[in-house]
Amino acid sequence: MELSKKVQSMQNSPIRRFNVYSLEAEKNGKKVYHFNIGQPDIKTPPEFMEAVKGFNKDVLAYAESGGSVDLQKAICNYFSKFGMSIEPKNVMITNGGSEALSMVFTSILNEGDEVLIAEPFYTNYHTFITAAGGKIVPITTKAEEGYKYAVKEKILPLIGPKTKAISIVNPGNPTGYILSREEMKVLVDIAKEKNLWLIADEVYREFAYDGREMTSFGQFEEVADRVVIIDSVSKRFSACGARIGCIVTKNEDLCGAVMKIAQGRLCCPTLDMIGAAAMYGVDPSYFDAVKKEYENRRNVTYDELMKIPGVVCQKPGGAFYIMAKLPVESTEDFLVWLLTKYDNNGETVMFAPAAGFYATPGLGKDELRIAYCLKAEDMKRGAELLKLGLEEYKKQGNK
Amino acid sequence: MELSKKVQSMQNSPIRRFNVYSLEAEKNGKKVYHFNIGQPDIKTPPEFMEAVKGFNKDVLAYAESGGSVDLQKAICNYFSKFGMSIEPKNVMITNGGSEALSMVFTSILNEGDEVLIAEPFYTNYHTFITAAGGKIVPITTKAEEGYKYAVKEKILPLIGPKTKAISIVNPGNPTGYILSREEMKVLVDIAKEKNLWLIADEVYREFAYDGREMTSFGQFEEVADRVVIIDSVSKRFSACGARIGCIVTKNEDLCGAVMKIAQGRLCCPTLDMIGAAAMYGVDPSYFDAVKKEYENRRNVTYDELMKIPGVVCQKPGGAFYIMAKLPVESTEDFLVWLLTKYDNNGETVMFAPAAGFYATPGLGKDELRIAYCLKAEDMKRGAELLKLGLEEYKKQGNK
Repeated sequence: MELSKKVQSMQNSPIRRFNVYSLEAEKNGKKVYHFNIGQPDIKTPPEFMEAVKGFNKDVLAYAESGGSVDLQKAICNYFSKFGMSIEPKNVMITNGGSEALSMVFTSILNEGDEVLIAEPFYTNYHTFITAAGGKIVPITTKAEEGYKYAVKEKILPLIGPKTKAISIVNPGNPTGYILSREEMKVLVDIAKEKNLWLIADEVYREFAYDGREMTSFGQFEEVADRVVIIDSVSKRFSACGARIGCIVTKNEDLCGAVMKIAQGRLCCPTLDMIGAAAMYGVDPSYFDAVKKEYENRRNVTYDELMKIPGVVCQKPGGAFYIMAKLPVESTEDFLVWLLTKYDNNGETVMFAPAAGFYATPGLGKDELRIAYCLKAEDMKRGAELLKLGLEEYKKQGNK
Repeated sequence: MELSKKVQSMQNSPIRRFNVYSLEAEKNGKKVYHFNIGQPDIKTPPEFMEAVKGFNKDVLAYAESGGSVDLQKAICNYFSKFGMSIEPKNVMITNGGSEALSMVFTSILNEGDEVLIAEPFYTNYHTFITAAGGKIVPITTKAEEGYKYAVKEKILPLIGPKTKAISIVNPGNPTGYILSREEMKVLVDIAKEKNLWLIADEVYREFAYDGREMTSFGQFEEVADRVVIIDSVSKRFSACGARIGCIVTKNEDLCGAVMKIAQGRLCCPTLDMIGAAAMYGVDPSYFDAVKKEYENRRNVTYDELMKIPGVVCQKPGGAFYIMAKLPVESTEDFLVWLLTKYDNNGETVMFAPAAGFYATPGLGKDELRIAYCLKAEDMKRGAELLKLGLEEYKKQGNK
């Protein structure tokens, strides 16, 4: 039986497809430090389960397709703290940030349309854009240049008649790069000049370190009709399993288009929306504590990584990922080796090989992504295992 | 800003887009009987919330992309009662039956590919197939002919080089039609002969009345590699707000393709999967009681409808919908009138106009779909309102 061309051209998740090796290793009694996935060990605010447990209706019924009004209002209130005036009609609740991206690309891309995105990029952008019939045109960045991409001379030559959007993850996944307000303005001006959508994935908004101030693309009034903010409770509240995200845009045509798709899948899970709305009411001190915790984890991880001879790595400014280049030919081979052939006192480490984060063939083979969302001592030990493992890997004659 | 052609060609849900009128009517104090949406008032099994409340981990984490193993196993166990041997690897958990359909069509359809489906059909098939770049080719059926569609002479002329699948909802939504085993065999043979996928949406499996025995397409071993079963807890357990469905197929290539898309959206909601797994453990007497209840609701609704002069309607054999033809030019106009201009003792009724359930332009304008999933006395009163409303509508000179 034949499958569609688009699904054949999709890749398996480089973050999840190695799970088969780690599950096997864990079955054999190895402890695996999971640096591969952005699954924080920070506690989910108890407000979530308290609200869920309070559900006392006899029937677990459908919700509105655009999301529960309570949650929409909670999100508007949250954005108002960033000086943004958002109304419930501008907020479409989605099954995580993932569905938000998928719905937006389905709404704006025709077959063969192009989306500009800085590479390395969060790998599922490839999945969503391909499924919508579109194509990624990468703005290639390098660790050595600090992953800078908001440069007019770099971007303009990539724009052609098929270009429909610039897609931005800020703070960046996997680079942790944070755009300055000036850099955001560069992208805003290009979008205006070239009539492009600006898809701003800001799910890591709170995670900006070293005193950096986070600006949202929603604060640029001059492009309000072309800015689409992608958001999610997954990372913000360490509630990845709730699968609640949203699309925020003042472009009413896009809201209408998204609504058509949203009505197709009927609604988001009722209980999770109740829980999510409650979480948005947490005290702001929650974010301060979480940010401080991640900042420390970043420092510990970065310091450990820098002990590895030959590593190339930038200290990230935000989110909870580090990209690093290792002195190996293939981080994928190294990863499989770590999971199947290596342990130190019964322990090993897992990361995401970075080739899948690039659209340009051949790039990223010697790079990896580390999610520093485990507690500091685990990050330290995992990074040490990376160093020890690499020494052993080399000693055994691997390249 | 430009939107994609595919989203422009999608329709707004004819089930949900009139909500604006009913919300307004309810705001003005009218009681509206909601016959428009398949939202049962049957109690959700308490096993759901009990299991959810038992969740006591600190972190609400991601689940596996294909679904939690507990839920996969519970579903395999459920299918074993129908004599079907399904393994967890054959079961992909999805965000409701809706996502299941969307993933399957994305996996099998190229731009311009065709899917055969009996019309009238559940309107969101249009949404999912269009979003995947495909096109519906309708097998037109009529109330006067009992909505029969599994007829070789009717189907073969519709099959061309672009045809990729036959999509079946059995028991049918919106017709309530149930295929006999012989009719299923006709479709199975066509699929084999013409090398087509068989997408069998069997979410109403338990709701077969008058002693009818339900057969699943999963019981035809000779097409195991081309059968894809779409399933959901929404109707079975009156748990529409849980958004848990699944794809069941023994075609491993398709499982692999679906997994790529599933990894893109990461996972289904963790709590809802816990609740769903618990519901699959309910006592079989639950289904008997629910079936008896729906059968009674169908009888009451049908009897009331038959009192309307000029109505054309078949007594449905399954699911919980009735299609009916009314002596009006446009059921859509009549519906808007019922919601905005009519009441009887402060009450009115809402249904789904049926034009959106047809792919052939012009068909279904004088038809409506009623979901008989409210308690019998509400169904009786709502159907009476339909009769009284129609009399008044005509008296005022409407056609």
